[in-house]
Amino acid sequence: MAGMHIMARKKSLIMSKYVIGIDFGTLSGRSVLIDVENGNEIATDVLDYSHGVMDSELPDGTKLGVDWALQHPDDYLEVLKKTIPAILSKSGISPAEVIGVGIDFTACTVLPVKADGTPLCKMSEFSSEPNAWIKLWKHHAAQPEANKLNEIAEKQGQKFLKRYGGKISSEWLVPKVWQTLNEAPEVYHAADRFIEAADWIIWQLTGNEIRNTCTAGYKAIWHKHDGYPDNSFFTSLHPGLKDLVIKKLSSELYPVGTKAGEITPEAARLTGLLEGTAVAVANVDAHVSVPAVGITNPGKMLMIMGTSTCHMVLGENERTVPGMCGVVEDGIIEGYFGYEAGQSCVGDHFQWFVENCTPPEYFREAEKKGLDIHDILTEKAKRLKPGESGLVALDWWNGNRSVLVDVDLTGMMIGMTLATKPEEIYLALIEATAYGTRMIIDTFHENGVPVNELYAAGGIAEKNPFIMQIYADVTNREIRISGSPQTPALGSAMFGAVAAGKARGGYDNIVDAAKVMGKVKDIVYKPSADNVRVYDKLYHEYKILHDYFGRGDNDVMKRLKEIKKQVK
Amino acid sequence: MAGMHIMARKKSLIMSKYVIGIDFGTLSGRSVLIDVENGNEIATDVLDYSHGVMDSELPDGTKLGVDWALQHPDDYLEVLKKTIPAILSKSGISPAEVIGVGIDFTACTVLPVKADGTPLCKMSEFSSEPNAWIKLWKHHAAQPEANKLNEIAEKQGQKFLKRYGGKISSEWLVPKVWQTLNEAPEVYHAADRFIEAADWIIWQLTGNEIRNTCTAGYKAIWHKHDGYPDNSFFTSLHPGLKDLVIKKLSSELYPVGTKAGEITPEAARLTGLLEGTAVAVANVDAHVSVPAVGITNPGKMLMIMGTSTCHMVLGENERTVPGMCGVVEDGIIEGYFGYEAGQSCVGDHFQWFVENCTPPEYFREAEKKGLDIHDILTEKAKRLKPGESGLVALDWWNGNRSVLVDVDLTGMMIGMTLATKPEEIYLALIEATAYGTRMIIDTFHENGVPVNELYAAGGIAEKNPFIMQIYADVTNREIRISGSPQTPALGSAMFGAVAAGKARGGYDNIVDAAKVMGKVKDIVYKPSADNVRVYDKLYHEYKILHDYFGRGDNDVMKRLKEIKKQVK
Repeated sequence: MAGMHIMARKKSLIMSKYVIGIDFGTLSGRSVLIDVENGNEIATDVLDYSHGVMDSELPDGTKLGVDWALQHPDDYLEVLKKTIPAILSKSGISPAEVIGVGIDFTACTVLPVKADGTPLCKMSEFSSEPNAWIKLWKHHAAQPEANKLNEIAEKQGQKFLKRYGGKISSEWLVPKVWQTLNEAPEVYHAADRFIEAADWIIWQLTGNEIRNTCTAGYKAIWHKHDGYPDNSFFTSLHPGLKDLVIKKLSSELYPVGTKAGEITPEAARLTGLLEGTAVAVANVDAHVSVPAVGITNPGKMLMIMGTSTCHMVLGENERTVPGMCGVVEDGIIEGYFGYEAGQSCVGDHFQWFVENCTPPEYFREAEKKGLDIHDILTEKAKRLKPGESGLVALDWWNGNRSVLVDVDLTGMMIGMTLATKPEEIYLALIEATAYGTRMIIDTFHENGVPVNELYAAGGIAEKNPFIMQIYADVTNREIRISGSPQTPALGSAMFGAVAAGKARGGYDNIVDAAKVMGKVKDIVYKPSADNVRVYDKLYHEYKILHDYFGRGDNDVMKRLKEIKKQVK
Repeated sequence: MAGMHIMARKKSLIMSKYVIGIDFGTLSGRSVLIDVENGNEIATDVLDYSHGVMDSELPDGTKLGVDWALQHPDDYLEVLKKTIPAILSKSGISPAEVIGVGIDFTACTVLPVKADGTPLCKMSEFSSEPNAWIKLWKHHAAQPEANKLNEIAEKQGQKFLKRYGGKISSEWLVPKVWQTLNEAPEVYHAADRFIEAADWIIWQLTGNEIRNTCTAGYKAIWHKHDGYPDNSFFTSLHPGLKDLVIKKLSSELYPVGTKAGEITPEAARLTGLLEGTAVAVANVDAHVSVPAVGITNPGKMLMIMGTSTCHMVLGENERTVPGMCGVVEDGIIEGYFGYEAGQSCVGDHFQWFVENCTPPEYFREAEKKGLDIHDILTEKAKRLKPGESGLVALDWWNGNRSVLVDVDLTGMMIGMTLATKPEEIYLALIEATAYGTRMIIDTFHENGVPVNELYAAGGIAEKNPFIMQIYADVTNREIRISGSPQTPALGSAMFGAVAAGKARGGYDNIVDAAKVMGKVKDIVYKPSADNVRVYDKLYHEYKILHDYFGRGDNDVMKRLKEIKKQVK
């Protein structure tokens, strides 16, 4: 590793320029130093947030309700302060060689600030009020507001609903801000701005309140041509929201791939970077990963596979695809419509199985062989041919995001016999998530957004060839895997290179940057014709069950949930 | 225990008479000595069969095919020889005080014999031929013959099919005998008789080839008025079967509750009983249990709950109840139509779960508390209210016997979330078997065979109050539990008392015997109104799923089985 750094260092003496990508995750932030010439990673540094996710109390001990999830702005600044100097020092690269910086963030992660950018939670009069803090993406306490918003929007026939699969999530900006107005009007009124944490960081780095179209489009109901929903819509939610768009958001939105500004003297002191270093407009972790695997045109879907899966694909036109999470013009790559879809339960699904349904002898075998329990299950599942288990499952243990957009759907499995073994159930759950992905792909494909090839990033893509082969067989498509273990940070660094521009050693646009810096591994998962044939039959059965239980023929899942609620 | 025997002994000096019930099970035979006056058990003795179930080879090493299950006639005789003297000796009762003997047997358990009763498997020329041995009830190697029989019978519109839920099982007599003709015609032709092991034992005890209507009716397609199917039907199966009924079965059939004869001098030497002791016509283990819990009239269903469940109920008339396993006039209690139904997977279901789906910490907790794993799961499941799990399952892990008569159906579960716990799944499987029972009850009830009260016997009824309460709540019926842990043996002893007759200290009929000797425990499981209300809703969901997957709306289970077969 040290050797690699020295080699890279020597090379840089001749010609290389560097960029930094900073990826703000749920529990930590990481900075990665990337070689502009080839996208290679030179150094990386991670910092866990001191306050992590605040879901039970504020720093001063104020208790939080259920479904709350807050963060502390100082944690983000600490990432800038610690990890940027760390990667410079680890690599021996001088700040002068760093031509640009890009960041990506979880979203919607939003905070109220004063006109000068001061977070309200940092002001003594608001520090005990939960609504003054940063609401993290997975803050779900604004569900009542989301429900009401959807009800009203549907009644009014608001056409924006279609762009979001028919529903605005409680995770998004408007419900979160509305919750603040409902519960802490003093915070709402004292807030000059509500801003994505991503854009707030850019503000801290550049001194400019420059908002990006990606978070605005996917999370704040903004549209390139239509803008935000009308003021009359906001007023119909709550009269107090009448000035939200005009005063507290910003109509100054910049597409991803543009430059937000340059490092200010203050930011230079904080980060150790040189004043004047180019800074890209902020981005979202999932979306920034698309060019990082080299995708800059339609037909190629990126799946980011972890506890859940996020699917992204570019389209030439704006289409209404049932169940998509959002479509945003220039939202991923300028000039294209960026489509997003999702599966709520992927890695979580397999983990649930391991924690709740795997018998002791499997754990004993894992221990004996020094393997992880997933490896043992995989080893056994590998011996099964497609269709041999006789099982089919619906992957709805955590509801269904795309294409049904229904959190009240639940899991189903069919085909068990007294001879059914744990590895068969495990395999059926894996296959179910693959069928779910195929359903998403087919739906895009049939609705004018072609998907011809697949790309995958994230923990599962990185570590699990068995699962990836099943996905290739089920979807009958080749799958390429992200070449970087830090896909979002690489993507952010690429946008940093674009912010710097070609004249300063970077690139003029993300397409050029992606050609050189985007990375996939050598391995390509290719569908096996035999398996495709069997999986086609099994997917046909999945589809029948999917439609029967998911499209209203038999709402048993909802009725069971209702009974559950009543008896609890 | 010794004290009890002495008390009983003292009492007997004054007035008591005794009867012996002999229950021939799958792996062992047991004799029980019963006080005629009150049905109390005085002594019991069990003997495991030396040859057990022969499913891989014959005693001489001849290999058996898959699905074979044979037994050795000497094992049965050994039970008579060892256990009868043992209970006499344990109790101190003299043979003179034993007024009657009754037996019950697994069925259809059938063997070929010579005219003098010699089993063909005991003759040196046939001892290496598997088909010469006793085919145990769970011998499934005659499935091809059963399939062909059903196909032909259906084509011919044979009305007997209706009495058996539309299908003759491969476990029953005609397929088993036909297999012998197909595979070992020399055995078929050398056999003067094919006889139920139950009736063969009676022959050994009394010297009379006296066959019972219970096994003939339920297992050999015999009907009180129509007799066996026409010879033309047998000829249409195979010309060689033309003489089966005329020569090799017997038209001399005696209803249960009649006397088969008396202990012969040879049988007296074998058993230690006195020559001339009355012997009842043979019976089947499940059916003989009905009067043992005091049921002698319609409206009361007995469930014998073990690995699977067998349901028995009496009716006033012959009705066609969908999915019943059989209806036989005088088959259980003379003067009534005895109806039988079944669930293929009950205790087996819970055992499958424990072996395949229960995580290590549950086993650790069981070990720590010194409990069985089922007890730990039950302890946790007890804390759940009906409906709280949000789960519903179809109990078809081993196909569905009643009411759908479809071995190709498989299991299904719905409602799982990432918060679903193992005890919730365990409970859902228990509830699923209860829904299956309710489906059977409702089907009888709606087809003119009322079921107002439930009785239960067998391991689950005996040991599991939690399950029994669920059954009471799901079926909205009171459940009484057999008072004897040896229900079939008690029932056989009662028939022994009837064979002896009132004049010799017994009873004139089984109704009188049941009044005095039939036994239920003091506990009555009563439905709880609150639970009934919730379970009604859940059963409604079960029913929709039952009909959707079981009655042809979506034959996914069969298609998955077909795919499974193809890829294997």
